[in-house]
Amino acid sequence: MANPSPRSGLSPSAIDELRSLLGADAVVTDPDRLASAEVDWTGRFRGSTPVLLRPRTTDDVSAALAWCNRSRVAVVPQGGNTGLVGGGVPLHGEVVLGLGRLDAVGPVDLLAGQVTAGAGATLAAVQAAAAEHGLLYPVDLAARDQATVGGMVATDAGGVHLLRWGGTRRQLMGVEAVLADGRVVSHLGGLEKDNTGYDLAQLVCGSEGTLAVVTAARLRLVPAPRDVAVALLAFAGVHDAVAAVAALRRRLPGLQAAELVVAAGVDLVCQAFDRRQPFAARWPVLVLVEVASSIEGEATGSGPSVERLAYSVARLDAVRDSAVADDAAGRAELWSYREDHTLAINTLGPPHKLDVTLPPAELARFLADVPGRVQTVAPDAAVWLFGHVADGNIHVNVTGVLDDEIGPQVDDAVLAMVAERGGSISAEHGIGTAKRHWLHLNRSPAEIEVFRQIKAALDPNGILNPHVLLPER
Amino acid sequence: MANPSPRSGLSPSAIDELRSLLGADAVVTDPDRLASAEVDWTGRFRGSTPVLLRPRTTDDVSAALAWCNRSRVAVVPQGGNTGLVGGGVPLHGEVVLGLGRLDAVGPVDLLAGQVTAGAGATLAAVQAAAAEHGLLYPVDLAARDQATVGGMVATDAGGVHLLRWGGTRRQLMGVEAVLADGRVVSHLGGLEKDNTGYDLAQLVCGSEGTLAVVTAARLRLVPAPRDVAVALLAFAGVHDAVAAVAALRRRLPGLQAAELVVAAGVDLVCQAFDRRQPFAARWPVLVLVEVASSIEGEATGSGPSVERLAYSVARLDAVRDSAVADDAAGRAELWSYREDHTLAINTLGPPHKLDVTLPPAELARFLADVPGRVQTVAPDAAVWLFGHVADGNIHVNVTGVLDDEIGPQVDDAVLAMVAERGGSISAEHGIGTAKRHWLHLNRSPAEIEVFRQIKAALDPNGILNPHVLLPER
Repeated sequence: MANPSPRSGLSPSAIDELRSLLGADAVVTDPDRLASAEVDWTGRFRGSTPVLLRPRTTDDVSAALAWCNRSRVAVVPQGGNTGLVGGGVPLHGEVVLGLGRLDAVGPVDLLAGQVTAGAGATLAAVQAAAAEHGLLYPVDLAARDQATVGGMVATDAGGVHLLRWGGTRRQLMGVEAVLADGRVVSHLGGLEKDNTGYDLAQLVCGSEGTLAVVTAARLRLVPAPRDVAVALLAFAGVHDAVAAVAALRRRLPGLQAAELVVAAGVDLVCQAFDRRQPFAARWPVLVLVEVASSIEGEATGSGPSVERLAYSVARLDAVRDSAVADDAAGRAELWSYREDHTLAINTLGPPHKLDVTLPPAELARFLADVPGRVQTVAPDAAVWLFGHVADGNIHVNVTGVLDDEIGPQVDDAVLAMVAERGGSISAEHGIGTAKRHWLHLNRSPAEIEVFRQIKAALDPNGILNPHVLLPER
Repeated sequence: MANPSPRSGLSPSAIDELRSLLGADAVVTDPDRLASAEVDWTGRFRGSTPVLLRPRTTDDVSAALAWCNRSRVAVVPQGGNTGLVGGGVPLHGEVVLGLGRLDAVGPVDLLAGQVTAGAGATLAAVQAAAAEHGLLYPVDLAARDQATVGGMVATDAGGVHLLRWGGTRRQLMGVEAVLADGRVVSHLGGLEKDNTGYDLAQLVCGSEGTLAVVTAARLRLVPAPRDVAVALLAFAGVHDAVAAVAALRRRLPGLQAAELVVAAGVDLVCQAFDRRQPFAARWPVLVLVEVASSIEGEATGSGPSVERLAYSVARLDAVRDSAVADDAAGRAELWSYREDHTLAINTLGPPHKLDVTLPPAELARFLADVPGRVQTVAPDAAVWLFGHVADGNIHVNVTGVLDDEIGPQVDDAVLAMVAERGGSISAEHGIGTAKRHWLHLNRSPAEIEVFRQIKAALDPNGILNPHVLLPER
C-alpha cells in the first residue's frame, strides 16, 4: 500500500481551487491566523501549514477531503486543539482541517435522552444544552470550554467521571464522518438496539483522525446529579486503598470519583499553600471519594448521598481516619488536597508528565517501584504520584528533569515498566505523535498490522493524520 | 477483491491434514454428529457441512483457520447455535468451526470487577462465576444455558436488562480473536482507560463472524441486585406510556425493564389462560416496569426498591391505574401478562416474527400503523405487538401468515416502514443470512461499501462467514 510523502506546500492554483470549492472565507492562508493552528496549547508541539480549511458543512468537509485525496495532500483534523500528544497539529506541513464551524448542538431528545452535536461544538456547549433539561453529558474535563465533540470522539476522551459513566466511547450512539476520499457515512439515529452491521462509530472513536473525520456525533445524556458528598479516607497503604475503593464501587452506584494521593504529595501541598494536614496523623495514602445521586433524597425515602457515603465508609475496616462533607465549602476543602497537587508540583519547576494505567492489582507495586526506576536514569529527580484509583489511571510527575535527553529516557523506563505489568502507556491522552514509537509496548505486531490494514482499507493514500498513532515503519 | 466460491466438499486428504493439525478428536465427519451443527435450533435454517472442527485451544483455532485460508475453504463459526437469523449454520456447505471446547471461565477479578471467559463458555457459566462473588454479568437472555460468549460477542447480544446495563458491547473490555489467516490478536487486560489504538474488540463485536473468530472475551461485572420490585401501569395510549417510561428512567437509576403490551394482547392472554384482567377497566396500553437495587436498603437509610418505585409511579400524571409488587409471587403475576404473550400467540398457530427498533418518538405511530400495513399484503392476518418500550424494541408477531410467499411480503412491508421512520430492521438478532438483502434499508451504499472494505482488508479471501451480514453483490 502506498504511503506517500505528503506535500508541505501548496501552489497558488491549488489554493484557488480550494477557494472555489469551499468559499474564500473557509480557506485561511494569512500567517497570523495560521499561527494558532500550528502549535498545540502547551507549546510542546509546533509545526507549520500552508492552509487552514474551515468548512461550514459536512458537504464542505467532504469536498475538502476529496480534493486533498485526489491531490495526495496530507490533512490534520483539528478540533479545540487541546490534545496532549501532538495529534492535532501540522508537524509535517499538513493542511489543517478545522472543524470549529460545525458547532450546532441539539435539540435535546428527551424521550431518548440523547443529543446530536456537530464536531465543532465545545464540551461546554453540549453540557449546557443537557443541563437546560435537567440532564448531564457525563464526560467532563478541564478543557471543557475549548475541547470539541469531534476531538473528544477521535481521542475517546476520558474525563473525571469515567469511573461512573464511562468515557466518550460509552456515550457515543453514532457518528457522521467523512472518509479520506470524501464519502460521508452517517448513522445518527441513536437507537439503543441496532444490530445492523459493523459499528463504525466505535471504530472511529479513539482512532485519532487517522480513519475518518468526525463531523457530528449522537451522544447519550444521563440524569443530572442532585446532591453530592465527598469523603477523604486515610489508609496504611495502597493495597488497602485499592481494595476499599473496589468495595465502595460495588456498594455505591453513585460513586463518581476516587482519587489517590500519597503522603509526600500531601506534604508538598500543605507546604506550598501553608495548609494544615488533613488528619492528626500522617497516613501513607489518602483517597478522595465523591458520590452523587440523581434521585431526590427527601422524596423517595432514601437518605441523601452523604449518609449513604458515611455508612459505607464506616463499614471499611481498612480506613484509618476519615472526613466527610456535603456542603460546597467542605467538599472544596477536601478536594483541595488532591486538586492542588498540580500547582504545588509546578512550584518545583515544570514537571515531566506521564499518563498511564495499571491493573488495579498492580497499583501498589507500581507506586512503590516507579521512583526507583526513574532514578536509575535521573538520579536527582523527584517523582510525584497521584491518580484515579478506581480505573488505575496514575499521573506520574517527575521534577528536576528538564533535559531533552533525560526526559525520553524517563519515558522509556516508566512506560516499559507499565507495559511489563499489564498497564497502558496511554490512559486517556492517546498516542498521537508523542507516543507512536512506544505503541509496540502495548500492542503486538499482529495488532499493529491489523491497524495498518484497516487504515489502508479506509485511507489508501494515507492522507489522514499520516504521522499519528501508527509507528513509523 | 476476490470473492471465492467456497468448496462444499473436502477431499479425504484434506480431512487427514486437518486431523494431523488438530488431533483426530477435533475433526468430526460422522454424519450423525454433524447433523446438529447443520441446522439452527428453530429448524428454519438448514445446511450441510463436510466437517465440524472442534478445536481445544486458541492455537488450534489459529491452525484451523490458517489451513482453511490457504485452502480457500469457507468457514462458519458456531457457538451455542442459538441465533435466529441463520448466521451460524453452514447453509452453503461451509466448514463449521465449533468453539464449544474453549469454555474456560475465570477467575473473577474482584478488584477490577471483570472476568475472562472462553468463547465456548455459556452465558449461564459466566453468570454463575459472577454470582459466586456477589456480582452479576448484566446481559441475560432466555438461551442462557446454550448461548456462548463467542456468539454473544459476535452478535452483540442484547437481552432483557439492556435498558439498565447495555448489551454485550457495553460489557466488553477486550477480546482475543483469530483472523482469517490464523493471526491471533489479543487484548484482554481489561483496563478501563486505555487509549492505545483502534478498538478491535468493538469492531469485532456485532460483526457476526465475518471479520474474525472470537476465542475469549474480557467481560465487565456489576454488583448483583438485592431487592426487586415490579409495577404494572395502565395508560390511555402509547405516547403517554413512552413519555412516562422516559421520566421513570431519569428518576429510577435501578430501572431494568419496561415492557409494553396492548389491550388486544392482554385479552388474548386472559382468554388463553382463563385469567382475569389486571385492572377493573380495559386500558389501551399497559407497561410492566421492574426496578432493582444493589444497595442494602435497611443498612443505608434508603427505602427498598418498592417504595421508590411506588413513589415515582405516583408522580406520573398519565398513569390511569397501577399495581405494585415486591414479593416473588406478586412480581410473577404482574410479569405473566407480558411473558405469556408468546404462549398465547402460539395457540393461534406458529407466528411470523420480526424484531425491530423504533425511535421512542415514533413508537406510537408505528404501533398504530403496522397492522394496517401488514394487512395490505396479508388481509386475513392478525398482528400482535409488544416489546421493550424504553429502548424502542418491538416484537411484531403476525398470525395467519403461514405461506412462504406472504411471509417475505410481510417482512418487506414492515421493514420498509421501520426504516422510513428511522428504526432498525434488526434490534438484537443481527442480520445473518436472513436479513442481508434488507441491510440497505438501514445502511447507505457508502456504509455498506465501508463494511466491504474492512471485510476485504481483514479477510481478503472471504473465508469467514461469506454469506452473512453483507448483501450479495
